[in-house]
This record gives sequence, C-alpha cells and structure tokens, in this order.
Amino acid sequence: MTWLQRQISLREQPRGVHLITREIVDQLPDLSALSTGLAHLFLRHTSASLTLNENASPDVRHDFETWLNAAVSEDFAWTHTLEGRDDMPAHIKASLMGPSLMLPVADGRLALGTWQGVYLCEHRDRGGPRSLLVTLFGE
Amino acid sequence: MTWLQRQISLREQPRGVHLITREIVDQLPDLSALSTGLAHLFLRHTSASLTLNENASPDVRHDFETWLNAAVSEDFAWTHTLEGRDDMPAHIKASLMGPSLMLPVADGRLALGTWQGVYLCEHRDRGGPRSLLVTLFGE
Amino acid sequence: MTWLQRQISLREQPRGVHLITREIVDQLPDLSALSTGLAHLFLRHTSASLTLNENASPDVRHDFETWLNAAVSEDFAWTHTLEGRDDMPAHIKASLMGPSLMLPVADGRLALGTWQGVYLCEHRDRGGPRSLLVTLFGE
Repeated sequence: MTWLQRQISLREQPRGVHLITREIVDQLPDLSALSTGLAHLFLRHTSASLTLNENASPDVRHDFETWLNAAVSEDFAWTHTLEGRDDMPAHIKASLMGPSLMLPVADGRLALGTWQGVYLCEHRDRGGPRSLLVTLFGE
Repeated sequence: MTWLQRQISLREQPRGVHLITREIVDQLPDLSALSTGLAHLFLRHTSASLTLNENASPDVRHDFETWLNAAVSEDFAWTHTLEGRDDMPAHIKASLMGPSLMLPVADGRLALGTWQGVYLCEHRDRGGPRSLLVTLFGE
Repeated sequence: MTWLQRQISLREQPRGVHLITREIVDQLPDLSALSTGLAHLFLRHTSASLTLNENASPDVRHDFETWLNAAVSEDFAWTHTLEGRDDMPAHIKASLMGPSLMLPVADGRLALGTWQGVYLCEHRDRGGPRSLLVTLFGE
C-alpha cells in the first residue's frame, strides 16, 4: 500500500474553463508506481472548481463558461457583495461543479475515458495561481 | 487491505434518469469480501452522469429529467452544435451531477441510506451502453 | 493502514445552509491518528447535501439558500408533490450539491484551505437530525 500527498500549484488562469490534465499529470511522476489505485485532486479554494468533461473541442469549454454565467448571474439579489460582482457567483459555481475529483488509476496512469479531461473552472476575474492537494493511494 | 478494479458495462438506456443500484450490485459479488471500505463508481463518459437520490417513486426520476431539461435548455447560445442539439446540454448536465460516486461499504454491502439509490443520468438521446469503472478497496 | 467507520448524528437544522466543520471535527477524535489519509463524509439522505465553501461570512450561506430557491423553484411542473412543496426541489438541490465530501487529512487534521468550511445544506423545511457516515482511512 502506497500513500503519497503532494501540493501542486496550478498556474494563474483567466476567468473561464481550462483543460489542465497535462499540467497535473506532468507534476505527478509518482503515478507510475501504482498498478491499481486512486488519485484525489483537491482544490483548496472556494471560488474555483474542478470537473471532468470533453477534452477535444475548445467550444465546449467556451459554452461551459457562457452557461455558468447565465445560470449564476452577477445580477441577482446577492447580499455578499463586498468582494466584487464576480465573487458571490463564483462561490455558487464552485459548489455546483465541486472542489475535488477522485480519479481511478490503473497500470500507472489515470484511467480516464477517451474523451475525458480535467477542467479547472476559474470563476474569479483574477483568481491567481490555485493550490491543488493531490493524494495518491493504491498498490 | 483489498484492492479490486472492475469494468462494468451498463446497458443502454433512453434519455432520462434511471435507477441502477441493482444492476451494479449484481455485478459486484466482490463486495461481500469487504467488512469496511469504499466503492468508487466512475463513469468514463462526458455526456452521462451518476447521482444518488430517492429509490422509491418513479415520479422523482421523471421530475429530475424535466428540471434538467429546463435548467440546461437546448435553446441556448451554444457554439458547440456539431454533434446534435442534445450534445452540449448533455455535457453541462454531466458536470452538474458528476461522473462518479464514492459509496461506503460496511459488512459486505453498500451502506446506503434507506431511501438512497444510484441513478444513471443518460443525457444523450442515444447514448448507447455506458462503461463504469468500479474500484473497491478496504479490509 | 487504518480504517475507521463512524456514524455521526448531525443536529436538526432549519432549512438553509449551515457551517458544520466544528460539529464534525469534534466527533472525530480519531483524525489525530492519521498522518496521511482521507476522510469520507457521507450523508445518508436524499433531501439534504454537503458542500465546501467560504467559512467566514454568514452572508455567503444566506445567498446560497436564496440562489438555490430561485434555481430550483417550488413553482415548477413537478409531478412528485405528495410529500409537500419543499420535497421535490429538495431532491434536485441534494443532487446538485451532492451527498458526500472526500477531504484530505494531513498530520492528524483536515487539510482544508484557509477559507474552506463544510456546509450542511438542509433542503427540507423540517428535515430532522441527519445521519452522517464517516469513513477515515490512511496511515
């Protein structure tokens, strides 16, 4: 049984939805040590989120951002407005998509489907670099 | 410590929300080997999803589908339209519900609440059979 | 390798979004035994949910509840209405936020970000006490 916990810094992204599978895997050489296991990706923030979705067309990520902005509008009866118009919608969006992913690992690699990629959803206008705590475990 | 990874094929379902607890458990005889552990169910797709909800009334699943279609309408300013009117809404719905579930296992069984069942949410009109990668681990 | 499964009762809360990090941690003295691991929090219900979000301003939690009520309205074409006007919206909200959280554990403590706290989202008018099944594992 192997346990490994590693803090990764994700580079700053503009508001929007970004494909970061490669950025993560490149910082996890330890994946190759697991024949069967799981990788837990945990974002230590409340205004950005992680999800899995289509890894091919950039249009899909564009449409994610457009839909999120329509579903959780900046023009709403928010009471928490001190940190900017983008802040409270960012909190809601972060919980809709969720702060973490648990991914299966098989034969030293993430066992994603052919079309699955990891999205970082940056919900703030200027979110800065984001901190990801990765826990790998398995055998 | 036991680790077991198993690929399950879920039979094709029409667009909508389907109760599949029994279909999954029937393909996991290995559950009985775990006294304490977890079962990770991971759908390897980006246009279907898994969630837990009420396992009794079919009306609840009907209302899930109706609400999802209203919340993520086919009539929206989508740019990714090449794969059909149902495709881009399916991607958003898939991330709203999520691609995976982590379920506690106790005494060789899924430790669900009395009213909890596993839903397969099929967001495409014709999604075909769906591939589920199950990881069981525990002692 | 340590495995521990513990049932926790969360005290009854009014409909709304509640910060319960302290209530959970106070019932998990066993956390201190893990140097590296994970804590799985699993709500055994279909009309309440768990999420992580901002642990400081009560306004954020107020706005969560307001947005959820607008996004999943009681005034909708629901067919499942036998259990009250708040019931079917509660089921949808529960799946939007999700029934569980997987949290990293490091040095005997939950490794949350500075601003992250555990929210119990009570979607029923009178949900009663809620049952949480916690699985701790690690080394």
